[in-house]
Amino acid sequence: MTTTPALSVASPSGSFEAGPVELRALRDDDVRIDVKFAGICHSDIHQVREEWGTAIFPMVPGHEIAGVVAEVGDAVTRVKVGDHVGVGCMVDSCGECEFCKEGYEQHCVKGAVMTYNGTGYDGEKTKGGYAQGVVVSERFVLTIPEGLGLDVAAPLLCAGITTYSPLRRWGAAPGTKVAVIGMGGLGHMGVKIAAAMGAEVTVLSRTTDKADDSVKLGATKHLATKDGKVFEDLKGYFDIILNTVSADLPMEDYVGLLKARGVLVSVGLPPKKYEIAPGLLIGSSKVVAGSNIGGIPETQEMLDFCAKHDFGATVEVIGADEVDAAYDKVVDGKVRYRYVIDTSTISA
Amino acid sequence: MTTTPALSVASPSGSFEAGPVELRALRDDDVRIDVKFAGICHSDIHQVREEWGTAIFPMVPGHEIAGVVAEVGDAVTRVKVGDHVGVGCMVDSCGECEFCKEGYEQHCVKGAVMTYNGTGYDGEKTKGGYAQGVVVSERFVLTIPEGLGLDVAAPLLCAGITTYSPLRRWGAAPGTKVAVIGMGGLGHMGVKIAAAMGAEVTVLSRTTDKADDSVKLGATKHLATKDGKVFEDLKGYFDIILNTVSADLPMEDYVGLLKARGVLVSVGLPPKKYEIAPGLLIGSSKVVAGSNIGGIPETQEMLDFCAKHDFGATVEVIGADEVDAAYDKVVDGKVRYRYVIDTSTISA
Repeated sequence: MTTTPALSVASPSGSFEAGPVELRALRDDDVRIDVKFAGICHSDIHQVREEWGTAIFPMVPGHEIAGVVAEVGDAVTRVKVGDHVGVGCMVDSCGECEFCKEGYEQHCVKGAVMTYNGTGYDGEKTKGGYAQGVVVSERFVLTIPEGLGLDVAAPLLCAGITTYSPLRRWGAAPGTKVAVIGMGGLGHMGVKIAAAMGAEVTVLSRTTDKADDSVKLGATKHLATKDGKVFEDLKGYFDIILNTVSADLPMEDYVGLLKARGVLVSVGLPPKKYEIAPGLLIGSSKVVAGSNIGGIPETQEMLDFCAKHDFGATVEVIGADEVDAAYDKVVDGKVRYRYVIDTSTISA
Repeated sequence: MTTTPALSVASPSGSFEAGPVELRALRDDDVRIDVKFAGICHSDIHQVREEWGTAIFPMVPGHEIAGVVAEVGDAVTRVKVGDHVGVGCMVDSCGECEFCKEGYEQHCVKGAVMTYNGTGYDGEKTKGGYAQGVVVSERFVLTIPEGLGLDVAAPLLCAGITTYSPLRRWGAAPGTKVAVIGMGGLGHMGVKIAAAMGAEVTVLSRTTDKADDSVKLGATKHLATKDGKVFEDLKGYFDIILNTVSADLPMEDYVGLLKARGVLVSVGLPPKKYEIAPGLLIGSSKVVAGSNIGGIPETQEMLDFCAKHDFGATVEVIGADEVDAAYDKVVDGKVRYRYVIDTSTISA
């Protein structure tokens, strides 16, 4: 057992405190990582504030983790000390069910173990990446390719794979037209990835506030949805609509923007039920889908893809004492486009 | 211009009358078909009874048409006099839009011309297959392979392709588990086709009344949904659920029957909106889709597939004077599993 400086929060209304937390003694298949950067995902806030049901406190959040291998167990073969690596939303799964075997560990029948605010198969509570160290089974350690900065790589481990996986599954490619709803942490990655896949990308946002950024990141258009005009102008236009927002949307209007056989895929979780007239799907053979992060092989594929196309997330690096304020700014939509904690600023 | 004996109905409350109707003079690309059999699709009843909005009267319904080529225009190359052929739900489309070019004529941007109760690009009202003859552009004439009886082939032109297309799109194959909701005209074809594709097929029906038939047609199980037990017992079981019924269903329960990444695809049009909690789709990357018949190339593929696997629809052949009564029986769910009109019984 070792300890590492970490940021933890003691209750839903608490603020972050720096202090040492324990890391488990290395098992044969474990990797100890010196965490360099940890992204702040909106879901961290939901969990810290206990907005997603009962949470486990004290909590060390963080599932967008980038760092350097510090130590490996005897049986570890895939990474070695000094390698640049990342950890995302999961740190264990059964490894034996059909989903694990197919590389969809997030759908593990036994239930994948979440990186933090979860309980491992050994009964231990999991701790995330707002820390200077984590210990993770090598099966859930990703290689961050040379050339990708660890700061801009960190958010790829959640925001990157969450948008890459549905874009890949549903066929974003040259000749396809992709809309991305929302230009936040997820949306800005959706734009970069869809553009790198060769698709024509349109951002659909409530306002035109971020229009310049959208174009800079690879979109050809950024359209405001506020006045509803886009739903007339672009009826039947898109092959794929990637919905990254967690607000309730007029789903039928968005389905109307799809071409026949088009796909509206959501990764953001709104409060209310979808209500969709069956004829809108049946008449034009349309598809409404959801998508939950991505499996480990696809996460590696995504990292390699981003490195090949020479981009990571667009980030603002912050210190440990800025995390509480950053949470409020994320909720207010003020981040451009992902806060990443420089974990060297955590004083034990 | 020629005439042909046909069954037509003069108003939504009227009954079928036999009498001559006009067929257009053969154009260069036209095929005149001696219709031998015409299937009765539930949608015929909706249209005749004006349940789907304004209809065009007098109406000669019928879009499940099987017959023999009687005459061809000068430019026709794909079929010749004497060939066994079929016509389905469409008789024209623009031929130039991206959907037509990709073989999805049913999604033609200009609007595909429906086989009956429609208006051709020339302004003429279209007439369907409850007749001894039809004239159709060769682009919409399908070849019925040797060995497939014209009576059992007729329903393939709508019920066959409507179930084949989604099963093919969503990957029914050996190793997959397919549920078919409903054992009617569409459902019984879904069972036969999914089984022939090599999938494990389960019929989900309100009752077990048709259980023996389900197994005979290729299902391994037929389960009643009435008491709701199946929604507990088979949670997370199916890769594909093909929903062929047009009653409102508890969609969330059916989504619960899907495996992660599974697809619930509907071809039956219920009155109310689907209501689905977003988390049910997002958490397990599930898919809700619609499907509308199929394009011409895929319809030919389906006919060849059925011939190769040596099956058509399960039909009851009826005479022209039985059509009114047959409509009532279809509405009451009493047909096993498709009525097919022997058009030789239409007296002019």
